[in-house]
Amino acid sequence: MIVTVTANPALDITYEVDELVPHQSHRIAAVRQRAGGKGVNVASVLTRMGRPVIATGIVAGAVGDEIRADLEARGVAARFVDGVSSSRRTVNVVSAVHGDATIFNEPGPELTRPGWESFVAGLDSVLAEVAVTVVVLSGSLPPGLPDDAYAELVDVGHAHEARVVVDADGAVLRGALRSGPDLVTPNRAELARATGTRDVAAGVTALRDLGARDVLVSCGADGLVLMPEQGPAWHARVPAALAGNPTGAGDALVAALAAGLASGSTWRRTVQDAVAWSAAAVLQPIAGEIDPDDVARLASQVLMEAR
Amino acid sequence: MIVTVTANPALDITYEVDELVPHQSHRIAAVRQRAGGKGVNVASVLTRMGRPVIATGIVAGAVGDEIRADLEARGVAARFVDGVSSSRRTVNVVSAVHGDATIFNEPGPELTRPGWESFVAGLDSVLAEVAVTVVVLSGSLPPGLPDDAYAELVDVGHAHEARVVVDADGAVLRGALRSGPDLVTPNRAELARATGTRDVAAGVTALRDLGARDVLVSCGADGLVLMPEQGPAWHARVPAALAGNPTGAGDALVAALAAGLASGSTWRRTVQDAVAWSAAAVLQPIAGEIDPDDVARLASQVLMEAR
Repeated sequence: MIVTVTANPALDITYEVDELVPHQSHRIAAVRQRAGGKGVNVASVLTRMGRPVIATGIVAGAVGDEIRADLEARGVAARFVDGVSSSRRTVNVVSAVHGDATIFNEPGPELTRPGWESFVAGLDSVLAEVAVTVVVLSGSLPPGLPDDAYAELVDVGHAHEARVVVDADGAVLRGALRSGPDLVTPNRAELARATGTRDVAAGVTALRDLGARDVLVSCGADGLVLMPEQGPAWHARVPAALAGNPTGAGDALVAALAAGLASGSTWRRTVQDAVAWSAAAVLQPIAGEIDPDDVARLASQVLMEAR
Repeated sequence: MIVTVTANPALDITYEVDELVPHQSHRIAAVRQRAGGKGVNVASVLTRMGRPVIATGIVAGAVGDEIRADLEARGVAARFVDGVSSSRRTVNVVSAVHGDATIFNEPGPELTRPGWESFVAGLDSVLAEVAVTVVVLSGSLPPGLPDDAYAELVDVGHAHEARVVVDADGAVLRGALRSGPDLVTPNRAELARATGTRDVAAGVTALRDLGARDVLVSCGADGLVLMPEQGPAWHARVPAALAGNPTGAGDALVAALAAGLASGSTWRRTVQDAVAWSAAAVLQPIAGEIDPDDVARLASQVLMEAR
């Protein structure tokens, strides 16, 4: 069983407008809303791909109720614990005239030390219960937690003999390394923010010095580079960039990596799947969705190169 | 007891940003949210002024829970019934650089005929229970209801020997007139939309022909004109326009009118109070708030003219 952690999930609300005009009033014809947050998206993709997964994390208040209800409606198994205050929303205003959304990100509720400890204890129970093989820690931490909070969760995962994947940015990624997560998955910008260098090889070395083991760097349309602690590095990509929605491509990539680790696949096969799942996610209008037929078709096109 | 009806209440969410830049992502430092809708604001103002009032209406889903929780926190007595789907939100993006908010108004859930009938029956019970003297019907109707839905509520109020005030716009105002509400309170723009004429006297005559009785027309900084069915008309205003937030001034005006009707005040006194409450509301940053000290100070400044 794969278990994802989303410490700061969101309710993603989408408004469609003809055009966003600052300082005007906009009548919204239809409202879409959906549970979001990177770990939630990973769990959603794994569910669509038929892999056993449980989404965990912290939700709070009425917005938390909406997050839970949406996951249930989507058939994503979830075991969230209750925080205080109210979970965060993101409001995404999509203009029919322009492509890019205008986004408003709420900060999310502050988490106190006791709230965090109660979540950690709850996660420990879930991991004991479900025969966990892989734990995925994705995204930002709630305000109020130290940057190395993920290190505690890495330890919890290892105590259950699970492999732990961390998909985080900057200081939060650095903070997780203390406990030696099995795989970290920064994109190039995240790697640069975590290490201060824009050179991929130098960045990976810097992460290793801090405790990283296997490292996968995603480079957008240039594909991805896996640099395992042992064995050959892999560079993998699709032959041509796909047009679509890049939001959620990173989460689909992490989902494929977790699936590969859970099933004991080779790195070659896992990296190939990761490129295919990620590319298939680009074809979906919404993060967290994927079509297994797209994955099957794209997997055969992935270009693999050992280094 | 005054009973307000808000058939389509909202959760008003406010985001403060330095500047709203379309097609960019905005990190919101602090989120404010508050139960809104015109009838809710009327009940809130009456509560602040120490007048007995109960807010009623229809709320639904998790957003409805947030509306209820906020009213409870603010000490506004409420007896809302449960609708289906989820109550609407409004997102108000306030820029520190510019004055005006950028607003996104959700439509609110559609109300079916059975849902409406169950609300009407519930309102009937509340009115029977609380010795109602005044019913206030404020604001828009939920999608799915006919424009004359307020006429039914006017009949329910009259069956309990209450006076009924209607503060509505255009076709919804026209639709309410069939049942002869005791007082309607359009502003000049609403009067023009309901009657097709921009002339106040002609507009009031048109409303009367449709069933209106007493009519009060608010004219913004020019004050207000009361044209009762019987007795002299009144024109009332403050000596100089007040700087502040006009949102909610109309709701404070309606609150004062309801308070005057409930206490059996003269029209002279009621109209004077209405100007003072409305002006005092302009001094508050948030709709639904009022300071009784401002009201007392402003009431002595109101200029009254019988016509």
